[in-house]
Amino acid sequence: MSGQPTPIIRMRDAGYYSANTIGARHVIDSCIPLVQRAVAEIPLTGGAFRVADYGAADGGTSLGLQRALVDAVRARDAGRQVAITYTDLPHNDFSTLFRQVQAGLGDLPGVFAFASGTSFYSRILPDASLHLGFSGTAMHWLSRLPGQLADAVHAVLGTAAERVPFAAQAAADWQTILLHRAAELAPGGRLVLANFCQDEAGYYLGYTGRKNMHATFAKHWAGLRDAGVITEAEVRAANFPQFYKTVAEFRAPFDDPASAVSRAGLVLEHCETRITPCPYAARFAQERDPAAFAAAYVPTLRSWSENVFLGALDASHPAGQRQAIVDRFYASYEAEVAAEPDGHAMDYVHCFMVMAKQG
Amino acid sequence: MSGQPTPIIRMRDAGYYSANTIGARHVIDSCIPLVQRAVAEIPLTGGAFRVADYGAADGGTSLGLQRALVDAVRARDAGRQVAITYTDLPHNDFSTLFRQVQAGLGDLPGVFAFASGTSFYSRILPDASLHLGFSGTAMHWLSRLPGQLADAVHAVLGTAAERVPFAAQAAADWQTILLHRAAELAPGGRLVLANFCQDEAGYYLGYTGRKNMHATFAKHWAGLRDAGVITEAEVRAANFPQFYKTVAEFRAPFDDPASAVSRAGLVLEHCETRITPCPYAARFAQERDPAAFAAAYVPTLRSWSENVFLGALDASHPAGQRQAIVDRFYASYEAEVAAEPDGHAMDYVHCFMVMAKQG
Repeated sequence: MSGQPTPIIRMRDAGYYSANTIGARHVIDSCIPLVQRAVAEIPLTGGAFRVADYGAADGGTSLGLQRALVDAVRARDAGRQVAITYTDLPHNDFSTLFRQVQAGLGDLPGVFAFASGTSFYSRILPDASLHLGFSGTAMHWLSRLPGQLADAVHAVLGTAAERVPFAAQAAADWQTILLHRAAELAPGGRLVLANFCQDEAGYYLGYTGRKNMHATFAKHWAGLRDAGVITEAEVRAANFPQFYKTVAEFRAPFDDPASAVSRAGLVLEHCETRITPCPYAARFAQERDPAAFAAAYVPTLRSWSENVFLGALDASHPAGQRQAIVDRFYASYEAEVAAEPDGHAMDYVHCFMVMAKQG
Repeated sequence: MSGQPTPIIRMRDAGYYSANTIGARHVIDSCIPLVQRAVAEIPLTGGAFRVADYGAADGGTSLGLQRALVDAVRARDAGRQVAITYTDLPHNDFSTLFRQVQAGLGDLPGVFAFASGTSFYSRILPDASLHLGFSGTAMHWLSRLPGQLADAVHAVLGTAAERVPFAAQAAADWQTILLHRAAELAPGGRLVLANFCQDEAGYYLGYTGRKNMHATFAKHWAGLRDAGVITEAEVRAANFPQFYKTVAEFRAPFDDPASAVSRAGLVLEHCETRITPCPYAARFAQERDPAAFAAAYVPTLRSWSENVFLGALDASHPAGQRQAIVDRFYASYEAEVAAEPDGHAMDYVHCFMVMAKQG
C-alpha cells in the first residue's frame, strides 16, 4: 500500500466491494416473482411451510428471496411457520451460514433455519416433505469429471468429441437431481431453479459476444507452458467439472412423457433464459479505470476457478511454488484486462425454471 | 518426543486415547433403554419420525443412541423414515458433525440428518413437529453468568449467598428450555434428558466423596495469586456459567400442577440419578501409573474449563503470557495428580429424566 494515496485506494475498494455478491444476488432476486407465483399455487397442508435452498454456500445471497418467500406464505396464512433447510457439501462453512441467516431473517417470527451437509446428488429430505425448493447457480457442478479436454479448460470450448462425455454426465446428473427432488416434494410442491446455461444465442457465463472468459483462461494457462513454467500434461489437466446445458438439454426430461422424471410426477411450468450483466464491467463502463477494473474483476474469477488450476499442477512442485505459478497465471490475465479492458465481462447467463410435483 | 522411547508413549496414548469420548458416550448409551421405551409410546403420525439432539457438539458420542433409536422406530414401522436435527451454538463445527454422522449413520437407509445453529434457550423447531428430543450433558450451561464467586470457581462450592442468583438463573433457564421444548413436541412426543446434577448424596461432577475437582481448580488458581502471577481480581473473575441442579430443582416445574411447564402439557414420567465412573481413574486403578494418569486426566479437564480461566485474565497481559499462565495452572494441577493420584476422578453424576407432551 505504501506510495499509494490512501483515499483513492479506499474509493476503489468501496466501489468494487462485494460486486461479486451483488451479481449473484441480482440473479437470485430476479427469481422472486417466480417464487411468489409458485407459493400462491402450493397446497398449504398441516405444519410448517417447508423450504430448501440447495447449494446455498453461506446463505447470504438468497436472504432477499427468502424474506419475499416468507412474505408470500404469510400473505396466504398470517400464522404459518416456515422452515428453511440450507444445503451444501459437508465442508461448507455452516457457522457463517447460521450467523448470516440469523442476521438476515432473525427478525421474522416463526421462521426456522436448518442445514444439511449433503450433496444434491443424494437424497436430502424425507419423502413428500418439501413445499418449495430453490437453487441459485449451483447445478452446473457435475458429480464427477467425466472426461479430459486437451486445449480447453471448460467443456463449453471443448471439441465436439470431447463434449460427448460431459453432455452425457450432465444429462445423467440432471436426472439424478430431479428424481431426488421429485421424491422430496409434497404433492403440488414446486422447484424454482436458476442455473447457468448455454442460451439460444450460444452465450454462456463469461461469453456474451465479445471476449471469452474461458478462452482467456486457456490462453494464459497455455502461456505458462510456452514460458517453460508448466508441462503439457499440466496444461491438459486443468478441466472444470462443469457443464452449461442448453435449454433443450434442460427440457429433455420434461418433454418426454415416458422419461423417469415425468413418471415421477415432475412437470415443467416455466423455462426461460436471461442475461444478468457483469457488475464489474458495468462499473468500468461508468468509471473507465482499466487498472481498477482489472484489479477487482480478476480476483472474482479466481475465487471460483483457482482450485481447478492449483489441482492441475503436478505434486512434484513444492506447495509454495504451485501457489506462485497460479499467482503468475492470474497476474497475466489481470495485465491483459488492464491493457485492453473493453469486452472483458463475466455476464451471467441463466436458465430459470419452475416445475411442479403433480398430485 | 525426542529422548522418549516411542513404544511406551504409544502405549500410553493408546490406553488413554479418547477416554473422554468414551465416558461421555457411556452416559449417553445408558439412555438407550429410556429412549427405546419412549419410542414405543410415541404416536406414529404421518411423515418422518422427527428427532432432535440438543447441544450435540460433533454428534459422535450419540451415534450409538441414534442407531438404537432408529432400530426402535423400525421395529414398529419398518419403512418409517427418521429425520434427526442436531443442534448447537452457531460456532460449533458443523462440518465435522456432518462427516461424523455420515460415517456413523450413513449405512442406514431413510435416515436424514440436519443441523441447527441455535441455542436451546431459543425456539429451534416448528410447533408440534418433534417426536423425540434428546440431550446429553449440555444443559448445565446457563444462559448467562448471573453472579460472582469470591473464592470458588463453580457455584457448587460458592457460599449460600453466592449460590442464590445462580440457583435463580438455573430455575429460570430450566423453565425456558422446557417451555420451548413443550411447544416443539408433537402430542405424545417425549424428551429424554441426561443432565449433570447434584445428587441425593450431595455428589456432582468431579466430587463423589474423595477429592473435589472444583476445589482443586480453585486451590491451584489461588496459588497463582500467592505466587504473584495473577491478581486478586483475576482470582475472583474465574467463574463457570454453570449450575448443577438438585433432583428437587429438576422436578419443581413438574411437581407443581399450576406451573407454566405443567400448563404447557409437559409431564414427568421418569427421574433418577446415576454415577458414571471416570474412565481415567478406572484405568489408573488397573495400571497404577500416576504420571500417565495425570498426563491424560488433566488435559480432559482443560478441554472444557480452559476458556473460563483464560477469560478471567486481565487484557493487560499479552496474549502469549495469558496462555503461559494457564499452562502453569494446569501443570500445577497435573503435578498434584502425579504426586498423589488416589482420589482424583471426574466421575459423571447425572439426572436422567423422561417427560411426555400430553395430548
